[in-house]
Amino acid sequence: MNDRFLRALRREPVDATPVWFMRQAGRYMPEYRAIRANYTLLEICKQPELAAEVTLQPLRLGVDACILFADILLPLDPMGCPFSFEKGEGPVLHAPIREVADVDRLRVIDPRESLAYVLEGIRLSKQALGGKVPLIAFAGAPFTLASYLLEGGKSANFLKTKRFMIEHPQAWHALMEKLSIVVADLLIAQIDAGADAVQLFDSWVGQLSPHDYRTSVQPHVKGIFDKLKARNVPSIHFGTGTATLLEAMAEAGGSALGLDWRMPLAEGWQRIGHDRACQGNLDPCMLLAPEKALFAAADRILAEANGRNGHIFNVGHGIVPETCPEVVRALVDHVHEASRRL
Amino acid sequence: MNDRFLRALRREPVDATPVWFMRQAGRYMPEYRAIRANYTLLEICKQPELAAEVTLQPLRLGVDACILFADILLPLDPMGCPFSFEKGEGPVLHAPIREVADVDRLRVIDPRESLAYVLEGIRLSKQALGGKVPLIAFAGAPFTLASYLLEGGKSANFLKTKRFMIEHPQAWHALMEKLSIVVADLLIAQIDAGADAVQLFDSWVGQLSPHDYRTSVQPHVKGIFDKLKARNVPSIHFGTGTATLLEAMAEAGGSALGLDWRMPLAEGWQRIGHDRACQGNLDPCMLLAPEKALFAAADRILAEANGRNGHIFNVGHGIVPETCPEVVRALVDHVHEASRRL
Repeated sequence: MNDRFLRALRREPVDATPVWFMRQAGRYMPEYRAIRANYTLLEICKQPELAAEVTLQPLRLGVDACILFADILLPLDPMGCPFSFEKGEGPVLHAPIREVADVDRLRVIDPRESLAYVLEGIRLSKQALGGKVPLIAFAGAPFTLASYLLEGGKSANFLKTKRFMIEHPQAWHALMEKLSIVVADLLIAQIDAGADAVQLFDSWVGQLSPHDYRTSVQPHVKGIFDKLKARNVPSIHFGTGTATLLEAMAEAGGSALGLDWRMPLAEGWQRIGHDRACQGNLDPCMLLAPEKALFAAADRILAEANGRNGHIFNVGHGIVPETCPEVVRALVDHVHEASRRL
Repeated sequence: MNDRFLRALRREPVDATPVWFMRQAGRYMPEYRAIRANYTLLEICKQPELAAEVTLQPLRLGVDACILFADILLPLDPMGCPFSFEKGEGPVLHAPIREVADVDRLRVIDPRESLAYVLEGIRLSKQALGGKVPLIAFAGAPFTLASYLLEGGKSANFLKTKRFMIEHPQAWHALMEKLSIVVADLLIAQIDAGADAVQLFDSWVGQLSPHDYRTSVQPHVKGIFDKLKARNVPSIHFGTGTATLLEAMAEAGGSALGLDWRMPLAEGWQRIGHDRACQGNLDPCMLLAPEKALFAAADRILAEANGRNGHIFNVGHGIVPETCPEVVRALVDHVHEASRRL
């Protein structure tokens, strides 16, 4: 197996910096759009054969890991909060959490039953990969999931989420606890199904002040990473806009912390500690830049990583649909070659 | 005059920490909604008597400064980019910048002619204030204005803006230069019309990496603050999500730097340097919290300021419409009293 990615997560020496991309399987790829012409996003997620097929599509780009095609919101439906993806709007929850009683009604599911299709997708993906590269599984972190449950979809200011958090601290912690149990169970089940590594997406946690993060979120996230320790599989703890939360997120856990482009990688790595691996941190918009500017940006990131063991090259947030797959392929090659020379 | 606000901007001792709020005149106030029942936002901006009336409405809340009721987008219309506010959508530009030639067509206006109504609003506001509290004028910073011009409205990822910036660096700098000339002229004209201080809103600049900020934005912003020096009026340099940009923003200029709630005030102040004043940094969502939690959050900010000369209490971004004016009033009193005790 090409094990650069796993070696980097363990901070072992690698022949070249491993590369993968968040949303590396997605709308920017013609072969994905061909499948989406016949199936919705949720249909692909729920049909393990299709999910596995899409999961492997980015292999042709030379990436050093595949990530299961799925969505962080999948657990919410069996928990009692159905949702759909509305064109141009992103996810829309049909019955968002409005009051304390809505938290009581949320079901703590067993992912091995309710999300069996996800686990089957992992088994099929592993089989199809045949050991070529490792497979990443993932889940949404409790704050980010709670924000969808409370806002009913995407949000600009996360007002409803923060308001609920501040006005109903007891119900907030109950909500976070329910989500944390499901998330930890899902990650462990995915590991048991064959995932080689897991990533926890706390995509929107950067909206919080460090004080609110430590009070209202960190203990729950720490609980999840503590549970993962029993499985001895590496984990990535990801967020965006987390410049002031990095120390607290590192305390919560993760073999690697994800950084976005706002935080210079050298400074971010210093702050999370060099006893962790570090993933990032190209601005995905740079993939639309002329090749010279793109490669220069990649080189700056490699220079910040400074040849230290434990760097995984990635974008700081998902690849955008306007991206050209050939550019992604060229970037993968460039990062491999440039890091070999360093 | 109650000159706490101006004294704090000059880092002189004050009897109590001055307080004002971004969007302190706005939809959360019944007297503003009463006027909005008969006039659109732009109509209020363009009728100096109405603008002055709304500007003074927050006086009843006990704030230590008023800010002219206006909008950062006002210069764009005479520059050749008309816009309107669509219900629930925010601003929509009718002809966004799509290509290099669109930048060439942008007119560099003289704000004393094209925005005479803004300057008249300042004169009327000053007159009506009768020296009670200082009057703040403001403008949008070139990056934030450019983002509206390129995105055509609000944006989640600022993809079009960044893409233009990276693909067409020469046209980008030409655009920033045109905007910078207009913004500097507008701020100076507002000072000459009687404004006691000015704030530059670079609200969305936190989307950029420090490298991109320094390369593509900072020189233009520095040019604006350099021009302001001739007027000897204090200035505030504001952005959100700027945790990794603070040093570079401070280098660009501003008597005070604005911080949002993501950055602990003590750390932020340290990073911008104690030779600057510091404005912030309550999460506006906290104004929806129970009073005890709200006051505790305010006390934490005052504790971070640690009695140092030069702190102006404010929210880290605008007050949200769901806010109750009586809560704002109570918070102003609390900050005044608590800071007197410290």
